[in-house]
Amino acid sequence: MEQTSKLRLGILGSGKGSNMAAIADACAVAGYPAEIAVVVSDVPGAGILDKARERGIRAEVLPPGRFRTKLDDAAERAYIGALQEARVDLVVLAGFMRILKGDFLLAYPERVINIHPSLLPSFPGLEAWRQALDYGVKVTGCTVHLVDQGVDTGPILAQATVRILEDDTAESLHERIQQAERVLYPQTIESLARGTLKVAGRKSRIIAR
Amino acid sequence: MEQTSKLRLGILGSGKGSNMAAIADACAVAGYPAEIAVVVSDVPGAGILDKARERGIRAEVLPPGRFRTKLDDAAERAYIGALQEARVDLVVLAGFMRILKGDFLLAYPERVINIHPSLLPSFPGLEAWRQALDYGVKVTGCTVHLVDQGVDTGPILAQATVRILEDDTAESLHERIQQAERVLYPQTIESLARGTLKVAGRKSRIIAR
Repeated sequence: MEQTSKLRLGILGSGKGSNMAAIADACAVAGYPAEIAVVVSDVPGAGILDKARERGIRAEVLPPGRFRTKLDDAAERAYIGALQEARVDLVVLAGFMRILKGDFLLAYPERVINIHPSLLPSFPGLEAWRQALDYGVKVTGCTVHLVDQGVDTGPILAQATVRILEDDTAESLHERIQQAERVLYPQTIESLARGTLKVAGRKSRIIAR
Repeated sequence: MEQTSKLRLGILGSGKGSNMAAIADACAVAGYPAEIAVVVSDVPGAGILDKARERGIRAEVLPPGRFRTKLDDAAERAYIGALQEARVDLVVLAGFMRILKGDFLLAYPERVINIHPSLLPSFPGLEAWRQALDYGVKVTGCTVHLVDQGVDTGPILAQATVRILEDDTAESLHERIQQAERVLYPQTIESLARGTLKVAGRKSRIIAR
């Protein structure tokens, strides 16, 4: 992902868009090596759409099709088309609540990333902060990873830790994890854009430039 | 586990005894609320035996019986007998390579602890540091937990994190995790002995005294 022009991001999200906003804020800083080319949501009226448009970022709603937890084939083609039309280099999932499979990953091989609210491989799946609290761990966090065919199983790019406090609720813990995400995700995208974060198999490493 | 006299520890180990030595060093500090009553090993000639005897701590070898990964019934009875004879309050596993089951845990309910070289529930089982490195996580660590019927599944008492470095090998990572263990294990035992670490179900918490 080395390049002199900026890395073009396509952000997919279903929710409030707090990670998208953090990435947009990073992109607004002079010298940051990426820019948001398009935001796509499967949820009409999702907060991420307003937050994008307020910032002058192109934002589209694309219907997900007939499944509840994934895109159907026609929807997948529409998403790929929208991303390609916007000349997206890297697809960034930011609270996108659908699993991406086969064709999508073939269209963007090792170019789809996600952030997950736990220290993977602990607590994959939904409400990972609540899973962590219920299990009784003392430390959790967030993980940026490449998306592969599994659920939250792809090669790990970066992780940040969040200590669980004695009086944490699911809500207070979730909030602190989200704070950590808003730092980690823009940092990781920056490293990918600068070509200093390299992936080989399951391992990623920071290299000096 | 509140008491005015010192908490009596029975340490079981199969290896070098580095965690036992760290606990013994802590016990030697004035005011530390625990003492090692006996060290038991299933491995004749294990380093933990010499390290104990050098420190004037009673150390015994008890044969494990006919199984490779657990104690057989007769061995379990012999272990329980040795610990009871030494008036042990808390059984501390320190590199003990056999699974403890039913009768043992009934004899010391919620009074058997272990330290595991990962941030559980990630990477239970053997060579957890190597599992973490092969998976490609960025953060691992160690976990002190109550021993239950499962393998590395009991309620978590304490966790410490260890960052994985770019040039880590299984050996260098294991060494740093062991350094963290040698701090975390004596700290956790101290909290249990002082009665400031309480367990309820899967959750543990530090309470003010």
